[in-house]
Amino acid sequence: MNESITPEPRGDDDVKVNYSLPSGFIEFTPAERALELHCLDAIRSAAERYGFCSIETPLVERLEVLQAKGNQGDNLIYGINPIFSEGHALGRPEDDGREVRGLRFDLTVPLAAYIARHLHQITFPFARYHMDLVFRGERPKKGRYRSFKQCDFDIVGRGSLPLMYDALMPALIHEIFLALRIGEFLIRINNRKVLCGFFESVGVPSGDIRGCVKIVDNAEKAGEEKTLRSLYELGVSEEAAGQIIEFVRVKGAPRLVLSQLSRYSGRNPHFDEGLTELTDVAEGLELMGIPEQRVAFDMGIARGLGYYTGTVYETTLLGQEGLGSICSGGRYEHLVGIFARETLPGVGISIGWTRLFASLVERGILKAETFRGATTAVLFVDKNLQAEYLKLAQELRAAGISTISLFEERGLGKQFGWADKMGVRYALVIGSREFESGIVTVKDMRTGDQVAVDRKEVVQHLVHAGGELSV
Amino acid sequence: MNESITPEPRGDDDVKVNYSLPSGFIEFTPAERALELHCLDAIRSAAERYGFCSIETPLVERLEVLQAKGNQGDNLIYGINPIFSEGHALGRPEDDGREVRGLRFDLTVPLAAYIARHLHQITFPFARYHMDLVFRGERPKKGRYRSFKQCDFDIVGRGSLPLMYDALMPALIHEIFLALRIGEFLIRINNRKVLCGFFESVGVPSGDIRGCVKIVDNAEKAGEEKTLRSLYELGVSEEAAGQIIEFVRVKGAPRLVLSQLSRYSGRNPHFDEGLTELTDVAEGLELMGIPEQRVAFDMGIARGLGYYTGTVYETTLLGQEGLGSICSGGRYEHLVGIFARETLPGVGISIGWTRLFASLVERGILKAETFRGATTAVLFVDKNLQAEYLKLAQELRAAGISTISLFEERGLGKQFGWADKMGVRYALVIGSREFESGIVTVKDMRTGDQVAVDRKEVVQHLVHAGGELSV
Repeated sequence: MNESITPEPRGDDDVKVNYSLPSGFIEFTPAERALELHCLDAIRSAAERYGFCSIETPLVERLEVLQAKGNQGDNLIYGINPIFSEGHALGRPEDDGREVRGLRFDLTVPLAAYIARHLHQITFPFARYHMDLVFRGERPKKGRYRSFKQCDFDIVGRGSLPLMYDALMPALIHEIFLALRIGEFLIRINNRKVLCGFFESVGVPSGDIRGCVKIVDNAEKAGEEKTLRSLYELGVSEEAAGQIIEFVRVKGAPRLVLSQLSRYSGRNPHFDEGLTELTDVAEGLELMGIPEQRVAFDMGIARGLGYYTGTVYETTLLGQEGLGSICSGGRYEHLVGIFARETLPGVGISIGWTRLFASLVERGILKAETFRGATTAVLFVDKNLQAEYLKLAQELRAAGISTISLFEERGLGKQFGWADKMGVRYALVIGSREFESGIVTVKDMRTGDQVAVDRKEVVQHLVHAGGELSV
Repeated sequence: MNESITPEPRGDDDVKVNYSLPSGFIEFTPAERALELHCLDAIRSAAERYGFCSIETPLVERLEVLQAKGNQGDNLIYGINPIFSEGHALGRPEDDGREVRGLRFDLTVPLAAYIARHLHQITFPFARYHMDLVFRGERPKKGRYRSFKQCDFDIVGRGSLPLMYDALMPALIHEIFLALRIGEFLIRINNRKVLCGFFESVGVPSGDIRGCVKIVDNAEKAGEEKTLRSLYELGVSEEAAGQIIEFVRVKGAPRLVLSQLSRYSGRNPHFDEGLTELTDVAEGLELMGIPEQRVAFDMGIARGLGYYTGTVYETTLLGQEGLGSICSGGRYEHLVGIFARETLPGVGISIGWTRLFASLVERGILKAETFRGATTAVLFVDKNLQAEYLKLAQELRAAGISTISLFEERGLGKQFGWADKMGVRYALVIGSREFESGIVTVKDMRTGDQVAVDRKEVVQHLVHAGGELSV
């Protein structure tokens, strides 16, 4: 991995080009990238089993589109302009006389624009996944990149979207993190109506509800003492603040939490509505067979973003709580319809992939030690046998076995070393002795074992070893 | 498909946001994107069978990196700058006081930077594929996008790279276009040493060789008459120009062309060296089993870019010659080492994917008519049976069958219509009658056939139908 937090100037004499990563960007080694691809394939496969389809949108949108929802702060957007002469940017945003453009900072605004652009080509409910880069013009720091990959999964309805989709999203989260095999995790669920209804019921004025949500969202990090102080500062009474602290402590198995919450019901219509929703979601989770130990209802989950209106999710990797939520989201009623000017309620989740992946690699939870450039290498022992090597490699590829060939004469020891570094499982040797006897020496690079295999059977031999190859 | 060549202003009254694509960008419908993913998977799989590994580099590089090789013209680079206040770009390229950044315009300069940044983590020869976006600040026109996906495949050696890799690249091209199933194609190969050696042998001065290459590169489009005129304008004598025209007509099966070329040998050392290389490449192509009808040696192939030094490739889709070359590349000695300041010769090919894919869809060569959102849909017939629907969908997903559920009561006809639009193959119905009898009605949406399947056997039933599902 190669992260550039602050640029390191290089002191070259003849070539003066600083080819290091631009500051705030990240780049993976081939081994890390192979691991990343493996993970992204697993995520994609989970999403496709749930009937999500892939979309891609341009990295660039009109600035007015990016700023239509001000929620990310417009100082985070990168504008783009052609550079016309060496080292000198033109600087006028309307460089081509027509439009101001910027790089997207999330995948939600592009989803809204995509739906508006393709409204009549889309069948609703529209379930899409989008795994791609976003850009944020921030000061870079550890774990914060100016460009990173997000994996977003949303289901959007036209006019309405049944609540059962709110139970489907945790099922997808469950499927994804099971597939990634990064350890035990807990999907934590709350409902904004429950939370805000509770705030109302203890007397928080409507103008301060949003502030309360933000304070609760930060409570886990801040601790109870600081949270209390923040609530006082907002103007919440001592009594109400105490009740809020007590309320956000409520967490645990869904049915248990629902029974604890029942004592608050009947006081506030929003709360009651939210409680009904949570009850339905609990039922859906059970029916979909999500193991109980991986789901909790947690009144301390709020999500900071303004657009959530109902169910909200966070996901904690157990033992790695420092990572924060590794997958978050929720239900929104008014977000995706902003451009299409229709009611398009949705529910979605998002994984900040680059940060998560880099952290998991750094912590050794995902291991990229062995790079698998290919399954099999055909070594180059004798220049006169080049025709044999070429033919054998092609036969292996035709059988679906990933194969690399070396076309340079080097010592056999050096070639085995190369095969080892390339991470291949089998190195195939045909020297003049093997050629004359019609055999191939197959060296298992993991065990060091060498076997002589009939030339005519070597492809089948490796196809049968296939079960082990994929590990 | 949604292409924006010129922006269309929208005349909305209350919401004034123009959410159309920024001009020069392209976006696909879900059905087109599914088809694109299918194609990209096929390309990736071919590259991996040949032992190419995936890399990704940041979209953003330092401007000095992007401009280190001036070959693309620096007016094509998009610079990026944070936009700090609404609608107003800061305009100073050094906005954070340190570095000027731009969006990459190809994947070759980033390869050179990547190798320099990871020199000690890479095992050579380094075979990588990179399928990702590049940006060019051009005036948009039909088939020219400001952002498009390229698929690049290069093998880079440290110090040297055996010529046999020049024969491996056409094998990969062959594998890719066979997998894409877009029709018959012809891989056309030449060698810059042969071409430039010939120019020298007929008396073109060294200062005009580059100009001759460009004229020949354009000859197919320009026609012989215009090509002759361009050669005269360059100062090539009438006799030499005639010889050049005759020479670039030489094309056909590799062995045939080699025999025709033999009569020019012995006159120029570069030519002779190139002829030896072509002869070796011809042998490699035969040994790797590339069908003869898909490969030609063609003295009219030159490639415009300055950095090619030996073998060059173009690929023509037969019957679609108007598309131009659909996959091009060549051998370069001095391109990739510019940052690492080492000799890192390479050979590579590139597909201008977005333009090719959009053209193939437009011409009906690739068909995206039927969108497959999922294989199977579980319909929502009776609210009281929701638990059944959820369980069945989860069982199907666990068996690897892509499944969508509807959670809204609609008429059965409407639900079948929805399943049809979603492109599912099977729609599953459990009404109260089915539920009581312990069966599921499975409707094949393609044939219209309905069968009653035992509830306990329905997952297996669909798994067995799997062979047909994937089409």
